[in-house]
Amino acid sequence: MIKVGVLGAKGKMGAQTCLAVEDADGLELVARLDQGDDLEELAKAGAQVVVDFTRPEVVMDNLAWCIGHGINAVVGTTGFDEERLATLRGQLDKSPGTGVLIAANFSIGAVLMMQFAAKAAKYYESVEIVELHHPDKVDAPSGTARRTAELIAAARREAGSGPIPDATTTGLDGARGADVEGIRVHGIRLRGLVAHQEVLLGDVGETLTIRHDSMHRESFMAGVLLGVRRIVDTPGLTVGLEHFLELD
Amino acid sequence: MIKVGVLGAKGKMGAQTCLAVEDADGLELVARLDQGDDLEELAKAGAQVVVDFTRPEVVMDNLAWCIGHGINAVVGTTGFDEERLATLRGQLDKSPGTGVLIAANFSIGAVLMMQFAAKAAKYYESVEIVELHHPDKVDAPSGTARRTAELIAAARREAGSGPIPDATTTGLDGARGADVEGIRVHGIRLRGLVAHQEVLLGDVGETLTIRHDSMHRESFMAGVLLGVRRIVDTPGLTVGLEHFLELD
Amino acid sequence: MIKVGVLGAKGKMGAQTCLAVEDADGLELVARLDQGDDLEELAKAGAQVVVDFTRPEVVMDNLAWCIGHGINAVVGTTGFDEERLATLRGQLDKSPGTGVLIAANFSIGAVLMMQFAAKAAKYYESVEIVELHHPDKVDAPSGTARRTAELIAAARREAGSGPIPDATTTGLDGARGADVEGIRVHGIRLRGLVAHQEVLLGDVGETLTIRHDSMHRESFMAGVLLGVRRIVDTPGLTVGLEHFLELD
Amino acid sequence: MIKVGVLGAKGKMGAQTCLAVEDADGLELVARLDQGDDLEELAKAGAQVVVDFTRPEVVMDNLAWCIGHGINAVVGTTGFDEERLATLRGQLDKSPGTGVLIAANFSIGAVLMMQFAAKAAKYYESVEIVELHHPDKVDAPSGTARRTAELIAAARREAGSGPIPDATTTGLDGARGADVEGIRVHGIRLRGLVAHQEVLLGDVGETLTIRHDSMHRESFMAGVLLGVRRIVDTPGLTVGLEHFLELD
Repeated sequence: MIKVGVLGAKGKMGAQTCLAVEDADGLELVARLDQGDDLEELAKAGAQVVVDFTRPEVVMDNLAWCIGHGINAVVGTTGFDEERLATLRGQLDKSPGTGVLIAANFSIGAVLMMQFAAKAAKYYESVEIVELHHPDKVDAPSGTARRTAELIAAARREAGSGPIPDATTTGLDGARGADVEGIRVHGIRLRGLVAHQEVLLGDVGETLTIRHDSMHRESFMAGVLLGVRRIVDTPGLTVGLEHFLELD
Repeated sequence: MIKVGVLGAKGKMGAQTCLAVEDADGLELVARLDQGDDLEELAKAGAQVVVDFTRPEVVMDNLAWCIGHGINAVVGTTGFDEERLATLRGQLDKSPGTGVLIAANFSIGAVLMMQFAAKAAKYYESVEIVELHHPDKVDAPSGTARRTAELIAAARREAGSGPIPDATTTGLDGARGADVEGIRVHGIRLRGLVAHQEVLLGDVGETLTIRHDSMHRESFMAGVLLGVRRIVDTPGLTVGLEHFLELD
Repeated sequence: MIKVGVLGAKGKMGAQTCLAVEDADGLELVARLDQGDDLEELAKAGAQVVVDFTRPEVVMDNLAWCIGHGINAVVGTTGFDEERLATLRGQLDKSPGTGVLIAANFSIGAVLMMQFAAKAAKYYESVEIVELHHPDKVDAPSGTARRTAELIAAARREAGSGPIPDATTTGLDGARGADVEGIRVHGIRLRGLVAHQEVLLGDVGETLTIRHDSMHRESFMAGVLLGVRRIVDTPGLTVGLEHFLELD
Repeated sequence: MIKVGVLGAKGKMGAQTCLAVEDADGLELVARLDQGDDLEELAKAGAQVVVDFTRPEVVMDNLAWCIGHGINAVVGTTGFDEERLATLRGQLDKSPGTGVLIAANFSIGAVLMMQFAAKAAKYYESVEIVELHHPDKVDAPSGTARRTAELIAAARREAGSGPIPDATTTGLDGARGADVEGIRVHGIRLRGLVAHQEVLLGDVGETLTIRHDSMHRESFMAGVLLGVRRIVDTPGLTVGLEHFLELD
């Protein structure tokens, strides 16, 4: 039985995590904390893993405390840059048995889509990304689409792939989408949609399409639980849920 | 048996039309003309319908001759504007039994997609268009996508539909596609594709998607043959194959 | 302001209808009744339209009462056969200003999909249906898929279409789906899905696909409200929401 | 420069292979043989790799000869069972520097689809397969769909996945497709299609879809060329093109 504490337990993701942990085999929810609560509760409750869905302003303090107490952490809070990751690595060096997972995306399906697209990219002359979301989303393209494009671009650079063919010479502004490191990304906004993405890869006479449809926040929980179960045996810093998926 | 002549018989579409007419029940190919041939051949052969896949520079002369001789015409040549259509109407007024069909698109599937999308548009808060083509295409978005957007925009204006919701405030240039009369249009270019288009309509809790995939020029022939069979009974000027489809 | 009463107001669809009517411009919710409540409440409240989402056992009594009181009705309850429809027609003959709409499906999108598919069917050599639902559904194929197949089969019979080509001679049982009046229907059951359907039409060199995705019960409300607004001006019996859509 | 001979050079796949080899950097077509030609031509021409697209009746003799002469082989001919593979292994043991690739499918995209689907399968509660082909195909489901189902079923057994949920209790025969080792497979036949397959994976609140569209035989050539380039450095027997793809 892995004892789990949740930070940000009153937020949408935190609350969903509490439900998921309570429901999961082999896990026990021992603490649910939110703003103003004392982190010492985690130690008193014997938490072995803390799931952090808080805010960028407080997450570094939370993690310093967890690492200092030898408590593993699974982190969905945003705002991590190289500097913050370096700080964490330094802290973890001094607490060698402790593990921290930082994940921008806990959707196993979205991570699989990105990994598969990156692996397939070098075998195709063309690749484009279409992301489709509800019309209340403020940014376009989505963070997942940008990240996918970066992974694909990196894979193509590594494989020595040439530029993607495109004979367009006339047209309307925006018709060919946004350019993310040479990969065209199109953002669709439609009432009725939630969060969807399609990666299209094409070569002579064939195309390969990888599509992920996310209809509910609940879909992130499988990834959070996988993180909780794996982080207890994975000391040090892990960035990205893909490292906990068996894709080889 | 309807006697058919083909103008531009050596071009890709003209040649395909010759094959299709020869193969069709109830039609007889009586003349195949190309650049330099004498239009009088059509009269000598007794052509009742002429299919014209020539060039904008010669098509008006061809049609003046056909109308003058009381021969019906099915026209896939491009470059018709209001002025040219008015000229044709004037000529047809003087030859009351003769019919001319001008069609920008002979794909029955593409026409159905456009018509259905326009009819559905007023029932949906959101609508966007994605067109997907091979990477050697020089224009983006495609003419069919533009035309679809115009038809949808007109249908929404007529129905008093409000603006399509879009909360996008930050992002990359082009991510939200091109704007055609308020409808967002996205153009994908991918090796392996031919000519495809998807119209996405969305409202609370549901979406409707209408997609047309065109893999081969042969797919235009059903529309050409339909035009040939119907124009003999449809005097005057008809603009658009949709008028020969039974959609009511 | 149209005064609306809801029968079966505590059921899922009835409760959703109450919310939708309260929220709608030009409609006023004046009565919400459920099992055991007295229909006289509807008359007292001055209801002009009653929306009935009850059960087959009680709906005929409800409608007899409504028609008798000159109250129009929009009915989503199931179980109507020719006999029941004949009974309603007889009752409506005696109450000439009253209208009743019986609809098996209030999803405007689903109705559009069915209507478009039926209109397109005669222009294509091949047509098949794929319906996709959550795995807790007990029947396969879905009622909507069967109804779509029947409409398509009727359209093809009327147009004199030949049999759909299929050279399959060897294989596994069930691989080619179920046969509904000569149309192949395939039912997919997948966790994460809600209610989706795709009609695929194909001919030489091209395909046309019409897909409807229904993610939430809320999506039926636009159809219910359309029914309420139109039934007050549509005396007699109307079977099917398609008669209230402008598709011509 | 790798010297390549083609067996079955007059067949569709063989002829396409000749064109592809002639066109490829670093490869030289040195022999094209068909029925009745003498295999000694291959030795005389100095072939280092032979591509065999012949028939089950002759392929074992062809390979015995190639292996005996230390010539590598890339084989697309069908009909290999465990017994035949064992025979080849025995022959290759005696010719340690020689390599033979037996591949049922040279479409890199189809192989990627199968591999990705198998890798993803254990993360999803549900999985189904839809294959879509032209209506002249005689078998249903397709060999690729069967093979995909077997790979997915094996991956799920290994991961200890439970049975796929399906509450269907009433319906029409065939509606739920064919059962291949517990995986439901649906075969669609539609004029206008060529060869397509979709693997749908679903779990709470999300779905992942991997789709491959094959429009032209030309699309197999990238896989054949990859096989030719890799087999010269891969002694022994390799079964399946996936072993030559970098998927880790």
